Amino acid sequence: MLNKLKEEVYKANIAICESGLVKLTWGNASAISREEGLVVIKPSGVDYSVLSPDDMVVVDLEERVVEGRLKPSSDTPTHIFLYRSFREIGGIVHTHSTWATAWAQACRSIPCFGTTHADHFYKEVPCTRFLKAEEVENDYELNTGKIIGETFSTRDYQRTPGVLVAGHAPFTWGKDVKDAVKNSIILEEIAKMACLTLLIKGETQVLPEYIMNKHYFRKHGKDAYYGQK
Amino acid sequence: MLNKLKEEVYKANIAICESGLVKLTWGNASAISREEGLVVIKPSGVDYSVLSPDDMVVVDLEERVVEGRLKPSSDTPTHIFLYRSFREIGGIVHTHSTWATAWAQACRSIPCFGTTHADHFYKEVPCTRFLKAEEVENDYELNTGKIIGETFSTRDYQRTPGVLVAGHAPFTWGKDVKDAVKNSIILEEIAKMACLTLLIKGETQVLPEYIMNKHYFRKHGKDAYYGQK
Amino acid sequence: MLNKLKEEVYKANIAICESGLVKLTWGNASAISREEGLVVIKPSGVDYSVLSPDDMVVVDLEERVVEGRLKPSSDTPTHIFLYRSFREIGGIVHTHSTWATAWAQACRSIPCFGTTHADHFYKEVPCTRFLKAEEVENDYELNTGKIIGETFSTRDYQRTPGVLVAGHAPFTWGKDVKDAVKNSIILEEIAKMACLTLLIKGETQVLPEYIMNKHYFRKHGKDAYYGQK
Amino acid sequence: MLNKLKEEVYKANIAICESGLVKLTWGNASAISREEGLVVIKPSGVDYSVLSPDDMVVVDLEERVVEGRLKPSSDTPTHIFLYRSFREIGGIVHTHSTWATAWAQACRSIPCFGTTHADHFYKEVPCTRFLKAEEVENDYELNTGKIIGETFSTRDYQRTPGVLVAGHAPFTWGKDVKDAVKNSIILEEIAKMACLTLLIKGETQVLPEYIMNKHYFRKHGKDAYYGQK
Repeated sequence: MLNKLKEEVYKANIAICESGLVKLTWGNASAISREEGLVVIKPSGVDYSVLSPDDMVVVDLEERVVEGRLKPSSDTPTHIFLYRSFREIGGIVHTHSTWATAWAQACRSIPCFGTTHADHFYKEVPCTRFLKAEEVENDYELNTGKIIGETFSTRDYQRTPGVLVAGHAPFTWGKDVKDAVKNSIILEEIAKMACLTLLIKGETQVLPEYIMNKHYFRKHGKDAYYGQK
Repeated sequence: MLNKLKEEVYKANIAICESGLVKLTWGNASAISREEGLVVIKPSGVDYSVLSPDDMVVVDLEERVVEGRLKPSSDTPTHIFLYRSFREIGGIVHTHSTWATAWAQACRSIPCFGTTHADHFYKEVPCTRFLKAEEVENDYELNTGKIIGETFSTRDYQRTPGVLVAGHAPFTWGKDVKDAVKNSIILEEIAKMACLTLLIKGETQVLPEYIMNKHYFRKHGKDAYYGQK
Repeated sequence: MLNKLKEEVYKANIAICESGLVKLTWGNASAISREEGLVVIKPSGVDYSVLSPDDMVVVDLEERVVEGRLKPSSDTPTHIFLYRSFREIGGIVHTHSTWATAWAQACRSIPCFGTTHADHFYKEVPCTRFLKAEEVENDYELNTGKIIGETFSTRDYQRTPGVLVAGHAPFTWGKDVKDAVKNSIILEEIAKMACLTLLIKGETQVLPEYIMNKHYFRKHGKDAYYGQK
Repeated sequence: MLNKLKEEVYKANIAICESGLVKLTWGNASAISREEGLVVIKPSGVDYSVLSPDDMVVVDLEERVVEGRLKPSSDTPTHIFLYRSFREIGGIVHTHSTWATAWAQACRSIPCFGTTHADHFYKEVPCTRFLKAEEVENDYELNTGKIIGETFSTRDYQRTPGVLVAGHAPFTWGKDVKDAVKNSIILEEIAKMACLTLLIKGETQVLPEYIMNKHYFRKHGKDAYYGQK
């Protein structure tokens, strides 16, 4: 069942580990089959070194396990909420990658300081508010999804494919799980560059909006001219 | 004698070296057999490249060498004091890992800035006071154990399985030596993240207590629901 | 056609990737045949893992593709402008290397803080001004070349073989593309050292001019005595 | 001639490269045969990838090449001055390692912030003054040796086996060249830890003198009890 998607999700989980974004078991990747309404996700707390494609868990959009011997990631309700809200995404990645997590811990959105950022994330990468006590005590992981949704109520989740959850860590998404992995690699690098930029100059001006737009639309949308298409 | 434990301690010493926490000979790992009241520890100042399981030294809780051709680590009295005080631990790791050591040198406890920290260490990772001159001049290594004990007189050593010794470096512990190694890896990563958090925002608010509790108890204790158990 | 140059440009593109200066497709290298007035450059947005020497694109100095199945790098007009303006250079490298990009994002020239810098770049590595809106909206990549030229109107591009484009990233050049790669490696390292120097001391004095001159001319020009020549 | 020493010097040069302390050709190691009054040193500006033991150059204490096809390192006069002044040393290493060089560029001695430092370098690692214009213009490399000697006129070069040359980079030494390599590795690590310590706390108190003494003499001198001797 969904063997191709399981293989992709397995590979994505290995990729975030090998690219240095995940230490121990601090991360998970998932993908959705929109036709079948089913999500494939990493099992909870399993070591990357012993993971296999068959360990992937299939859940439906009501959080029920449809296939798999193992418990799904404890962050499954967050993933499902995002798949329900962001209708065009096909994959989600959650890591505690060092530099992006530092921004999340500082409760700061990452300003767009340069074209590396503008090429991939439109405007700042937002940081959510903190969850309130009652949101933590009940349905914590679902509410984590909800504050991400709230944060994007005035933003375009396709142009800015990632978020920092305050005091926690980043989530990224994409048209498929491979794309979500790529966005998590990019987010970590722009988080590092933005921190170093602050060290060199203190509170720095952001990139002028016309440069930000130029770079984003040079790579995305109908007038894009970067790459081979 | 204690061959299985020697193998575990040997592997732990190699693991802290390979994970980048130890340069040269700056670290040591030990484990205790509670039934026999014997501790297995790395020999003093021996290069990791020539170490073998047979080089591990067995000492009793009076610091007497029971087996082994080599001198035990000069930090042996610290380890023994901790095994005597913290009755539930099975292994101890001492490293001079870069970021955790920087916090120890700054004589600052690591505040709990995020859930990566809260998942593994309950509240701040405390820094001891400096030893006094007379505590350094006599029984230095024993007194290093004693200030760790003093620091935990009002804390729970099982929930916060590590400490920074002021001006020196971290010690971590766990239910066995493998667990202590894992805690030393985690401590180094949260030390790095916390330093970067300060760089991004200056003196930052700590994680709200209700999120700290949620994350710690999501992974530990009777109501834990993270992982496969 | 130009097979030797294609091989060199291919190797240079691989070298900037393997030396850690380029993540994903964020970089490109080119070389010029001055005799034939033709430039060999990396194709746009192609993964380094699938790149081959045959993928290199040959363009003339009017930006027309002369040979190659693929679209040339979107930065081709920048490269061509530089080849037209800086008549003695044979190769150009553009990367988004982490530390040099952080200086570009901070819109700060890298001061000459030490002899590592002075050995290779004469005086500061300058940062351009921001492009204006109209310069971005029309002929963006050409205008990127033009502000580099403007920045060097009062400098010697041979003694200072690199630049930071404000809000963007570095470009380096050299007598051939191998030399340009070497300069991009050096620029990244001196960008890192300069940032750390600021962290240690705040706004620091630059190297006295007589030391700067000594080191630069110990390695370059007719009185050089470093190396085997 | 001096084949064993050439082999040692070759290995030391490779070691500083492989341990990440040297980029490109930015470093050199040498050793002295005190009996014969001859120094073996790396040739100037030769790539580490093509270096062989036979490329090592033998010079006497008057800077005359006694054996070797290649020019000796341009820093040879600095090495020779140190061998003449510091009568007990057998090897010298010069690198531009990132963090130690940043301290040199900041013109700051590295304070002794912790026991990692105190274990190996007694008190601060000093930074020289800047050379004056006339000292740079004539006999620059010899004068670099002289300011190191001047800096140690009131210090013990055996207890503090390294220095930062202001605006330049570190030199370390030891009883043989292997020991000098080890000291350059240690210096880089304590330079990094000290910088991070400043980031965490700002201008931090140094280690109390009684702890500094305890750690240094636990490892060195007649009452040392660290290691297997």
